[in-house]
Amino acid sequence: MKHELSQRTINRLVQYHTILREYSKKNIENITSSQISSFLKIDETQVRKDLKSIECKGKCKVGYLVYELKEAIEVVLDYKSTKKAFVIGAGNLGIALSKYSKFSEFGLEIKGLFDINPDIIGQKFDNKEIYHLSTIKEKIAQTGVNIAILTLPNKVAQSVADEIIEAGIKYIWNFAPSILTVPVDVKVWNENLIGSFLQFCAIESIK
Amino acid sequence: MKHELSQRTINRLVQYHTILREYSKKNIENITSSQISSFLKIDETQVRKDLKSIECKGKCKVGYLVYELKEAIEVVLDYKSTKKAFVIGAGNLGIALSKYSKFSEFGLEIKGLFDINPDIIGQKFDNKEIYHLSTIKEKIAQTGVNIAILTLPNKVAQSVADEIIEAGIKYIWNFAPSILTVPVDVKVWNENLIGSFLQFCAIESIK
Repeated sequence: MKHELSQRTINRLVQYHTILREYSKKNIENITSSQISSFLKIDETQVRKDLKSIECKGKCKVGYLVYELKEAIEVVLDYKSTKKAFVIGAGNLGIALSKYSKFSEFGLEIKGLFDINPDIIGQKFDNKEIYHLSTIKEKIAQTGVNIAILTLPNKVAQSVADEIIEAGIKYIWNFAPSILTVPVDVKVWNENLIGSFLQFCAIESIK
Repeated sequence: MKHELSQRTINRLVQYHTILREYSKKNIENITSSQISSFLKIDETQVRKDLKSIECKGKCKVGYLVYELKEAIEVVLDYKSTKKAFVIGAGNLGIALSKYSKFSEFGLEIKGLFDINPDIIGQKFDNKEIYHLSTIKEKIAQTGVNIAILTLPNKVAQSVADEIIEAGIKYIWNFAPSILTVPVDVKVWNENLIGSFLQFCAIESIK
């Protein structure tokens, strides 16, 4: 099921889930596709199509049961399974992502950060510690982490990627603006923030 | 032209541009679609289709001229036009984005940060200053900024959005995991990092 959903659909489902959480906190039991579409300023037909694609059917006038829809999205997007990751590069972005509490709600647990700056090694926050990069192999063995979130300057991204792959990392969520060369069994997801912004500019003709 | 490109195409064009910059730095004059596709591990047909969509044609065996292709992407994605923005929320993420030098290469200039924490107001780095949020209206008048990059906790995102819209902001690049309610003439682009990660997990079946 999950494999058939496009990135845009998944993004919309995550946004529906945000609204459903807010409804759920307020103990509101029902929600209509029209309410969701007006919050997000998207077409109501699109909302109904998305929810039908995850096999949720609303009832005429009553809409959807908030808890059912919330649960259905969590199952489809696999929020409940834990995905353990290390953050590589404890600069501002690395620390911002490590402190981002919403990640854990979606099953992403950051088990520690790695850096080479001696001034910050050993620092702790939110139950996370900054370790020296040279210890990553033993930390992978201890924790079973196979995902790395790469928040590094461009110039060191490839050499550090080589090092963490050698240590056992299989999946890289790459925030460095760099094209990494990796073995075939390692998967890279490039987080292209500037590409996203340029799309916003193109859609809205921002000058 | 730009309006016809999908987000995925734009994202790929930005990645092609990254490779072209590296080739350009190394003074390599030509590049083939096969080289681009092997760097990015995507289908060569896709690369040729994308480049044809921006009216770049390669020559058999020789490929594309690096400087021509780089220039063509910059024109299509409008890198050269300056887009001025303020960062609202000078926490780790706000500062990370403000320090991200790649933004300016793509025409995005961050003219300052805003916060309400008295301990950090007045701090400067990279020619940028952290101002008090209460001064945003006059700073908009001085600079002509109409884009805000919102890097705030969920609980204050809506009230601050109301305040900056009142002050004149028209475009919001929203990193807060929150659905904002805004007037019809204000445009919001939700940067959904966790949605992006969940898509990675779904594609690669990460458990």
